[in-house]
Amino acid sequence: MLVVMHSTATQEQIDNVVEAIRRMNLTPHPLPGAIRTAIGITGNISAVDPRTLEVLPGVTELLRVTKPYKLASREMHPDDTIVSVANTRIGPGTFTIIAGPCSVENEEMILKTAEFLRSQGVRLMRAGAFKPRTSPYAFQGMGQKGLDILVKARETTGIGIVTELMDTEYADAVEAAADIIQIGARNMQNFSLLRRVSQTRKPVLLKRGLSATLEEWLMAAEYVMAGENYNVILCERGVRTFSDHSRNTLDLSVIPPVKTLSHLPILVDPSHGTGKRDYVPSMAMAALAAGADGILIEVHPDPDRALSDGAQSLDFAGFTKLLDKLRRLAEPLEKTVN
Amino acid sequence: MLVVMHSTATQEQIDNVVEAIRRMNLTPHPLPGAIRTAIGITGNISAVDPRTLEVLPGVTELLRVTKPYKLASREMHPDDTIVSVANTRIGPGTFTIIAGPCSVENEEMILKTAEFLRSQGVRLMRAGAFKPRTSPYAFQGMGQKGLDILVKARETTGIGIVTELMDTEYADAVEAAADIIQIGARNMQNFSLLRRVSQTRKPVLLKRGLSATLEEWLMAAEYVMAGENYNVILCERGVRTFSDHSRNTLDLSVIPPVKTLSHLPILVDPSHGTGKRDYVPSMAMAALAAGADGILIEVHPDPDRALSDGAQSLDFAGFTKLLDKLRRLAEPLEKTVN
Amino acid sequence: MLVVMHSTATQEQIDNVVEAIRRMNLTPHPLPGAIRTAIGITGNISAVDPRTLEVLPGVTELLRVTKPYKLASREMHPDDTIVSVANTRIGPGTFTIIAGPCSVENEEMILKTAEFLRSQGVRLMRAGAFKPRTSPYAFQGMGQKGLDILVKARETTGIGIVTELMDTEYADAVEAAADIIQIGARNMQNFSLLRRVSQTRKPVLLKRGLSATLEEWLMAAEYVMAGENYNVILCERGVRTFSDHSRNTLDLSVIPPVKTLSHLPILVDPSHGTGKRDYVPSMAMAALAAGADGILIEVHPDPDRALSDGAQSLDFAGFTKLLDKLRRLAEPLEKTVN
Amino acid sequence: MLVVMHSTATQEQIDNVVEAIRRMNLTPHPLPGAIRTAIGITGNISAVDPRTLEVLPGVTELLRVTKPYKLASREMHPDDTIVSVANTRIGPGTFTIIAGPCSVENEEMILKTAEFLRSQGVRLMRAGAFKPRTSPYAFQGMGQKGLDILVKARETTGIGIVTELMDTEYADAVEAAADIIQIGARNMQNFSLLRRVSQTRKPVLLKRGLSATLEEWLMAAEYVMAGENYNVILCERGVRTFSDHSRNTLDLSVIPPVKTLSHLPILVDPSHGTGKRDYVPSMAMAALAAGADGILIEVHPDPDRALSDGAQSLDFAGFTKLLDKLRRLAEPLEKTVN
Repeated sequence: MLVVMHSTATQEQIDNVVEAIRRMNLTPHPLPGAIRTAIGITGNISAVDPRTLEVLPGVTELLRVTKPYKLASREMHPDDTIVSVANTRIGPGTFTIIAGPCSVENEEMILKTAEFLRSQGVRLMRAGAFKPRTSPYAFQGMGQKGLDILVKARETTGIGIVTELMDTEYADAVEAAADIIQIGARNMQNFSLLRRVSQTRKPVLLKRGLSATLEEWLMAAEYVMAGENYNVILCERGVRTFSDHSRNTLDLSVIPPVKTLSHLPILVDPSHGTGKRDYVPSMAMAALAAGADGILIEVHPDPDRALSDGAQSLDFAGFTKLLDKLRRLAEPLEKTVN
Repeated sequence: MLVVMHSTATQEQIDNVVEAIRRMNLTPHPLPGAIRTAIGITGNISAVDPRTLEVLPGVTELLRVTKPYKLASREMHPDDTIVSVANTRIGPGTFTIIAGPCSVENEEMILKTAEFLRSQGVRLMRAGAFKPRTSPYAFQGMGQKGLDILVKARETTGIGIVTELMDTEYADAVEAAADIIQIGARNMQNFSLLRRVSQTRKPVLLKRGLSATLEEWLMAAEYVMAGENYNVILCERGVRTFSDHSRNTLDLSVIPPVKTLSHLPILVDPSHGTGKRDYVPSMAMAALAAGADGILIEVHPDPDRALSDGAQSLDFAGFTKLLDKLRRLAEPLEKTVN
Repeated sequence: MLVVMHSTATQEQIDNVVEAIRRMNLTPHPLPGAIRTAIGITGNISAVDPRTLEVLPGVTELLRVTKPYKLASREMHPDDTIVSVANTRIGPGTFTIIAGPCSVENEEMILKTAEFLRSQGVRLMRAGAFKPRTSPYAFQGMGQKGLDILVKARETTGIGIVTELMDTEYADAVEAAADIIQIGARNMQNFSLLRRVSQTRKPVLLKRGLSATLEEWLMAAEYVMAGENYNVILCERGVRTFSDHSRNTLDLSVIPPVKTLSHLPILVDPSHGTGKRDYVPSMAMAALAAGADGILIEVHPDPDRALSDGAQSLDFAGFTKLLDKLRRLAEPLEKTVN
Repeated sequence: MLVVMHSTATQEQIDNVVEAIRRMNLTPHPLPGAIRTAIGITGNISAVDPRTLEVLPGVTELLRVTKPYKLASREMHPDDTIVSVANTRIGPGTFTIIAGPCSVENEEMILKTAEFLRSQGVRLMRAGAFKPRTSPYAFQGMGQKGLDILVKARETTGIGIVTELMDTEYADAVEAAADIIQIGARNMQNFSLLRRVSQTRKPVLLKRGLSATLEEWLMAAEYVMAGENYNVILCERGVRTFSDHSRNTLDLSVIPPVKTLSHLPILVDPSHGTGKRDYVPSMAMAALAAGADGILIEVHPDPDRALSDGAQSLDFAGFTKLLDKLRRLAEPLEKTVN
């Protein structure tokens, strides 16, 4: 449910409505807009008599949100969300590049990659310290040591850090190290983990599950937002289908419905989406043209010796070439790539 | 198998090899290239002693083609195929627009659409006279009358005609009316129909089946090419997955592997791919950026009154706007839209 | 639409209603039942004033059929359809075995198989004279010669013949040779072929398409029934999914909804469904327990030397063992296996 | 890797090998068999010189396990695993019924259901205290109070308890309350959770993920077994496909490959698999015939008033009827239902 305030409503009137909602044991979510403020309400609304709110000073109207996701819906939040982080703004007008290796392998390669990325004007680096691996016997990431290396990379180069959180146990450590906390595809419906990151103050990059419908994905975002962390960034990374020409089926067609139904920014991960280095540039270009807000892309100083995902990582030269192409393509689309 | 001729081989030597292949009860497919000619061989190769060919004058070497598709493979035909039709060339450097209504409804709307498309610089119009419909009780198309209207549209406006053939019975009629014969997704593995169109002299637009792997699709193209009709144009139109945000899941990620494995041009049908008008422009843009050779797109003078597929058709204004965007996007990609 | 006649309606009254429907340019489908006759109507019903029929003598009521498929729906035909063919009855109380090799390879193996099957009490043999093959270079079946061999097998052993029709060109030949005409999965939406077999007087075994929804499948059956061939037998043979442990994903879960929504018998093909001989018996047993009306199963005298589908064919000993198990399992289910 | 001991090897010799493996920083998994003991080895085997083990007294041979899953593979453990729990044995010869409501709603309904189930000879009850819900606003389960009710049901009726663990935080509480700990489909690749339950001493029921391949599923089991909890019970509950006639596509065809590749018992959940009450009995019967070791099935005293999953729950009468049918079907299969 959405309480729309008058354009002339005072802060006191807004606070008053917020307070009234809290007294009903519901959660108010103030949503300041260009012209007026609205206040989203979540919780068990069925028992509430809406007329109690309608009569409060400054209230224009009460709107019912028809989608099962509320805070994530464009119905409740008509303006695009812009996530400000690491000196950049993820959202309209910008095509954000988050690049880096699959996993933190050692300090040298991370610093090298961070410096390279900064030299290319990239502001966010991805790299995993905790790795979700299909096999219990595979390399599981460097853990806390990996996080320390990432922090050092930020301190040295100024690059923002995007890294995955796999369990609640390490939530504080990852929150401290990361500028954006990544939730992996296999954890998209790990509801405990979603609730935990809703309690952090860092933006959350939420990958789409391998067989998640758009509604389930937005409901997962809703778990984070219901805990009052509104900075959710969606990331399409390929879904499971019968198709075998690539590792997953990258679903670029989800971009326009995401933009219609939600106000959240959406990135695309062409590296996991295709699983093959040669197919990554085409899909990165397509993501830009389709209206995505950026890409999450694997770049490694020496892909053929990567501890994980080498086959889908670009080397520095390949990345530079792609970045150049993206910048030229972004011009007629009136977007800035960084 | 591929017989590679010397760059200095004479036409007589080439003819001699072709003749030798025929005598083995195999089918020779001469493939002239920029530097040298190669001759593909199809048929039951297992029983042949390749040394018989290796010793012929002008022959450099014999290569085994490892893929199950031969004529459709880039191994056998390294250069991109360019299909010349209706004063345009489908292939590298061009982004070809094939636009028009789902079905021929009457003469007026077809002429109106054809004139509009020509005024926009579009050279090929799509429209179905025979419609594959899920229900036996639904409108099945105007049939021969529809073909006559399409012929009239070509005569009047000079536009090229793309129309679907659904059964061998109407093959002659459709061949006479069409510049490009379309094979629908549901008929991608209708092998009798593929064999029949391999006997026509018109290019074939081969839509991907709803759950076809890339290999099956190229094998379907091979059916057409094995009958010596080499002008096959592939068309991705969405596949069946669990995903429900659009009518089908448009698989743009198939474009780079098609380009790697085959030399055939590939178009994208964002109208059937998404099933929703609002999502069509983004996917058309993405197709261009991903490296497709064009789009097949539904445009109707009055979509809300269309007899079929109205929900996924653009009106003239919407199409003009998209065309303008595509032309601007094509510039940095060094492609011409027409 | 369904015209329900009075239980006391005379044949003359029924004929009169049938005639009235024809005069409206619609198709009447008389459906005699245990207590009363109903008359299904197909065609463009929208333009008809139903009151014209309601007032005719012997008419009780007019019912609207809500599903898009009419003749295939249980709404219009509440009793199970029983297909009588080759001295057996496919439908309730019977678990019908249709066994045999993938393709007719030569006369000897067909006669040997037919005799073996008859000795086991099996009444229907499957074998393809025309084979739909992914590759144009693969064995395409023996064609008319294969049909002749099948006819000889029937004459010699009395076994009923189930064989596939791939194109309208051979419809007469296949109709003459077959007791049941099979439509393959890849042709489930080859609407021309469906229309053609609706004109034959032989029952049609309609395989489910590789990615067909249940509604699309029943609509395909409707194409056959709309042409007044009411003897359609459905056959589930596995669908396309991400799952890679078997060749296709055998969807046994489609059986209960088929029984709810339709009156048509449904068989299961565990050979194509799994693609692996070792998995076939379990799935045949499961099909019986799930309520299927029979199986279509590949049996070959020497599977390891089969020209096609050897990996999924049982040998005679394996088949005998399975048949014995099926017969024991059928007892508590009160079904007869033959 | 697998160390096969001589049939005459002494316990001392076995202990000696176990010790030697530990000294290599690897994990030994003694696997006593009918004739001889084998010792599985997991960990980073690549660095080990196998000859060091081959020469130890009592060792016959070292075998390489070719599958990526080791402890879960039949290669390493040829005999079927039998999980003994709550006075029953899940495995060969038994068809185990685990029945009960989706969630613990209150004490009365749980006690009523437990008593009913015990009266029917059922030994294990399912019911969720923690519920994974797509929406953050939906009923999330009674939590610890729910667990207390389940414990009371066990104490009162003697029924064994199967209940879901959703996060590591409640692992001790669920371990204390449950006889079998359930891991839900959405958590199949929640590797932290898998590692945590590998540390409990209770059997683990591991549901297949919505789009998990068989290999990924067995790798998830391997996570549990690698932590030395060998009592893993697999549970198929339907996968995501294009098919829309049921909530999920129940993949019974996974049963034979599971039995071939692994020694673990496998159950089937026809309630989640179909999502519709009417389809549940057929699928339960099919699961039995296909070789499953039991079912997990939703039964509720008053399904139409259930707080969750009412549409797929049987009432007591429906369950009794199904149980009777299963028992009759189990006879020719030589299995006992309980």
